[in-house]
Amino acid sequence: MSEQTTTSAPSSTDPRALAESLRTVLDGRWAATRDTVRAQIQAQGLTPQAGLTLAEYRERVLGQMRAMVPLGYPAAGFGADHGGTGDTGAAVTSIETLGYGDLSLMVKAGVQWGLFGGAVENLGTARHHERYVPGIIDLGVLGCFAMTETGHGSNVQHLETTATYLPEHGEFEIHSPTTSSRKDYIGGAGQHARYAAVFAQLITGGPGEDRVSRGVHCFVVPIRDAEGRDLPGVATSDCGYKGGLPGVDNGRIVFDHVRIPRENLLNRYGDVAADGTYSSPIESDGRRFFTMLGTLIRGRVTVGAAAGATGRLALTLAVEYALVRRQFEAPEGHGELLLLDYRTHQRRLLPLVARAYAFALAQNEVTAELSEVQSGPDADPVRVRELEGKAAAIKAGHTRLASDAVSEAREACGGAGYLAENRLPLLRGDIDVFTTFEGDNLILTQLVAKEQLTAYAEDVQGLTAVGWVRFVAAMARDVALERTAARQVVQTLLDDSDEDTEQSDLTHPGTQLRLLRNRENHLLRTAAARMRRARDEDALEVFTDTQDHLIKVGEAHIERIVLESFVDAITDVHDRPTRDALKLMRNLYVYSLLERDLGWYLMHRHISVERAKAVRRGVNELCGTARPLAKTLVDAFGVPAVALDVPMLRPENSVAAPGGE
Amino acid sequence: MSEQTTTSAPSSTDPRALAESLRTVLDGRWAATRDTVRAQIQAQGLTPQAGLTLAEYRERVLGQMRAMVPLGYPAAGFGADHGGTGDTGAAVTSIETLGYGDLSLMVKAGVQWGLFGGAVENLGTARHHERYVPGIIDLGVLGCFAMTETGHGSNVQHLETTATYLPEHGEFEIHSPTTSSRKDYIGGAGQHARYAAVFAQLITGGPGEDRVSRGVHCFVVPIRDAEGRDLPGVATSDCGYKGGLPGVDNGRIVFDHVRIPRENLLNRYGDVAADGTYSSPIESDGRRFFTMLGTLIRGRVTVGAAAGATGRLALTLAVEYALVRRQFEAPEGHGELLLLDYRTHQRRLLPLVARAYAFALAQNEVTAELSEVQSGPDADPVRVRELEGKAAAIKAGHTRLASDAVSEAREACGGAGYLAENRLPLLRGDIDVFTTFEGDNLILTQLVAKEQLTAYAEDVQGLTAVGWVRFVAAMARDVALERTAARQVVQTLLDDSDEDTEQSDLTHPGTQLRLLRNRENHLLRTAAARMRRARDEDALEVFTDTQDHLIKVGEAHIERIVLESFVDAITDVHDRPTRDALKLMRNLYVYSLLERDLGWYLMHRHISVERAKAVRRGVNELCGTARPLAKTLVDAFGVPAVALDVPMLRPENSVAAPGGE
Repeated sequence: MSEQTTTSAPSSTDPRALAESLRTVLDGRWAATRDTVRAQIQAQGLTPQAGLTLAEYRERVLGQMRAMVPLGYPAAGFGADHGGTGDTGAAVTSIETLGYGDLSLMVKAGVQWGLFGGAVENLGTARHHERYVPGIIDLGVLGCFAMTETGHGSNVQHLETTATYLPEHGEFEIHSPTTSSRKDYIGGAGQHARYAAVFAQLITGGPGEDRVSRGVHCFVVPIRDAEGRDLPGVATSDCGYKGGLPGVDNGRIVFDHVRIPRENLLNRYGDVAADGTYSSPIESDGRRFFTMLGTLIRGRVTVGAAAGATGRLALTLAVEYALVRRQFEAPEGHGELLLLDYRTHQRRLLPLVARAYAFALAQNEVTAELSEVQSGPDADPVRVRELEGKAAAIKAGHTRLASDAVSEAREACGGAGYLAENRLPLLRGDIDVFTTFEGDNLILTQLVAKEQLTAYAEDVQGLTAVGWVRFVAAMARDVALERTAARQVVQTLLDDSDEDTEQSDLTHPGTQLRLLRNRENHLLRTAAARMRRARDEDALEVFTDTQDHLIKVGEAHIERIVLESFVDAITDVHDRPTRDALKLMRNLYVYSLLERDLGWYLMHRHISVERAKAVRRGVNELCGTARPLAKTLVDAFGVPAVALDVPMLRPENSVAAPGGE
Repeated sequence: MSEQTTTSAPSSTDPRALAESLRTVLDGRWAATRDTVRAQIQAQGLTPQAGLTLAEYRERVLGQMRAMVPLGYPAAGFGADHGGTGDTGAAVTSIETLGYGDLSLMVKAGVQWGLFGGAVENLGTARHHERYVPGIIDLGVLGCFAMTETGHGSNVQHLETTATYLPEHGEFEIHSPTTSSRKDYIGGAGQHARYAAVFAQLITGGPGEDRVSRGVHCFVVPIRDAEGRDLPGVATSDCGYKGGLPGVDNGRIVFDHVRIPRENLLNRYGDVAADGTYSSPIESDGRRFFTMLGTLIRGRVTVGAAAGATGRLALTLAVEYALVRRQFEAPEGHGELLLLDYRTHQRRLLPLVARAYAFALAQNEVTAELSEVQSGPDADPVRVRELEGKAAAIKAGHTRLASDAVSEAREACGGAGYLAENRLPLLRGDIDVFTTFEGDNLILTQLVAKEQLTAYAEDVQGLTAVGWVRFVAAMARDVALERTAARQVVQTLLDDSDEDTEQSDLTHPGTQLRLLRNRENHLLRTAAARMRRARDEDALEVFTDTQDHLIKVGEAHIERIVLESFVDAITDVHDRPTRDALKLMRNLYVYSLLERDLGWYLMHRHISVERAKAVRRGVNELCGTARPLAKTLVDAFGVPAVALDVPMLRPENSVAAPGGE
């Protein structure tokens, strides 16, 4: 059986028209925002720099932020009733596009307008909106987002900072009771922020009640005066140099019984009356906490999106270099080959380009869903929960891809890729932490798996691991089978395709969907079974033994939903060459991920040995097919010219190869 | 069938004694040199720094080099008859151990004493030794190694720089005829070097002869005066900031008809008489070239070794962190677990620790062989060729491991791992180029494969790709079967083990050797067959289609020879707990590499589905077994305390987790 992988090369078109058409698909709904930011990157030369001191870089980035204000998009993330324009999708997309520029700027802008601004917008009420939002937009109010603590990074529910209400003064006292409660890694806290959105355990009681903890809430706390000095009781310090992001002033904050007015509690989901009485529209502490966290999802979506942009930038640099750089004598007078003529080089870069297409389209979908959920009033909780799961999945997958792409691009440019003047090492340093912040990828992947196992079940997130294992054991079998409500196009393709994946065409999207779906279901079913079997054993042991299985569930889920987005996006494309190019990318995405997981597929007999060989061959063939399209495929990313204006791509240097000493 | 993977836990011993004993094994023959350098790192605080300017960092590193001179080991790499102490192994090991300190210092020291010094020592003759070596040792003569050109990184044979002999003046004229002939990425050329060992095409002819090219030779060329100004005709420039290695002043050199005396040709393998007559002890241009390159192998060995040290340092940091850092509530009142109690965290780090053991031992063997080959007079060419292949293999494998280990260690420390104060991001930036310089890993891996295919055949390296394909087609079948001359212990183990790898114990070294050997032989055989079949097709197409196959041959070879070294090293260990710990590492090395390549093993029916599942389970079990030993296992690396003295490992900070914003 010879798989047909080579038909889809759209060779007869004008490459520029094809690139434009592909770019329209990739740019999606907020294309205009993308173009505004692209133009700004180009006009202002917003590219990462080497050799500045921290102080210089921080000033530079703050200046760049000030230049963004008049362009209008910093206002996009805020409601029209308090100075914003209420376009969440544009807000996310504008920050995303800065991933083609300088990630220091992207992160610092994201902290100010997305995280700090988002906390005030989404957790606050009218009094906060009126007081702070205009300043947040125009940078009169510089803020930071003080959630993470030294002792508690990913485990937000157990933050230790306290906010104790003192009814006799009508104030909260913000306090860091332990070393581990220090706020840590906080972007903006190192130098520029004058306010912090502080997440702390709220402790209060009404008249006659004991003061008790009401769970984590968020407070606006002034931390510096106009001259940048710490306010009384506040002790900030600087995280100093990092692996990258030199323009972001990460820092630490310790609070020593700092008083703030009662009104500084962001009180949309929980309020404290003057007499200390606590009230909330949401009964359950757990649900309230997750509802509050849920409104902050924009940060996670933005981080994944921006990482993706940087990944595309790095791939563009590496592909362009591989198309100017010659190396070694080719056989029989072919001359020195271009780097991209080597199969190994194609294999290094082109499957990543395909993955970049897949994730870019999936990311667009998440942004659109976020925009819908956050543009209305309180959204359907089930839909919010689904979006949270998807945002976690795409964040983990997209930042992983970005990190892989930047590393591979760096190595694929050899010695040239190591010089700061060619940007790749700066991108490498900047992107590195994206797999960690806004949710560590490993933890998010487990969360995704957990969500899959417990989908549609209410209130399960508050359970401890043991409770969760028990819970899952009791219910997961039915869940695994039930939760297949699919998008229409996916269902149609599945219905159209042969259930026997071994016989059906491997380039058919129905077959591809089925292979990824079957893997995920198999993993889910067996994970649930393991847990059920292990019911009476030590819960810790069960958890430890199944953790790698769970990670694999999460990864399989991520790859599956990304394929579904991809398939869905192609449906809307009617121009034939564009459609063919996208199909080529989809095939390469699927073939290369099947290749990476062939061990599993063979081991669990979802793929035969013969088909496995066809997969390997297929990756090579698809790389060969994509080779002549390579430039068009990366041109479609629409990276601004200034970001590609590096010495290694200029004619006089374009012959340099890896190696050296 | 349940594989038995858990027996080998040596739990009954004093951990400190075990760590000492393991360290003795890992330190090997040049343990004393290691300890000298460790003490120097500790005493002088030789750790990477953030926030220095290039100028400051370069001065710092040069000062550190001056402090090394009186310790004696810079002299180790040079013959006793001209100021050295003639201990190549000590020379390599001393630079290797700087991988526990600061890689900027390692590289700059390696350039001066290893590359520049090595060129003068190995390619020069008495007149050069007398004139330069004492100054090279005591830094009176600062040099650089000018091989790489902008247009020719890995393709040294086609360098463009010319050295034309002018008999009327008794001088060579060194010239850069094209843009692409510029010397590039040259460590030391940016600022400090006053001399360059320049590789150039020698053009000369005796009386009545035409002046013709005699191939690449090496020349000592003064490039700067005592005040650091470029000499007439020399134009240096600075590569500026890089991804890391800020203390190394990489630069570029362009020569405009620069004259040097005839005596500056390093004339051990080729000489020019006053009248221009060329002579050489080696007839064939190709063989001469590869002989010359072969003498420079020390750089490649050193780079792999030092990268390995840095990988061990990073793993030590990450394992120590995972042993102080708690995260999340564990099930049923186990309290917050240490990071390393999580199976996923074990899987992140412990297989890399096992790989680090495997490669450290293989590296020691290469250093010892190098020492033997270079300590005598001209060595057996077959043995030299074998050593070259092995050095290429271990360089590629060890630098890959180091890069993987540093990245994984960085991520495994979450937000803390991104702060420069905790060193991991600095190590990340520094190690990144090790996969590229001293031979790009991808090219070395292909070289390894090619060597395997053409082992024992003379003069084949000079062939073009097409010739090589033809050649291989004609002979590779026999070669593949013939070249199995194994070390005794390996042969004995193979003889002792069941030929049916499916039935035999997977923890038996014989089974393990057989599985890796069978894979390599299978890949070799099929590669040769593909080439033979493809004889009449377009050579370029054949090359392209088989390139990924060749890479896999190379990788399989690397993993196999590393296992053989490991097995061999264990044979010499008689202390039971030490032996058990090493076996545990060997098992984890083998299981995790089988797991990574399960797709291939299943696809080619070298492993059954049942056994494949046992491999997966085995990795988990071995991680569990290694968990209580983790601290001992990294203590055995003997990283100096100062290199581990970072904030995240101090008690007041030891509770911080991944995550943050």
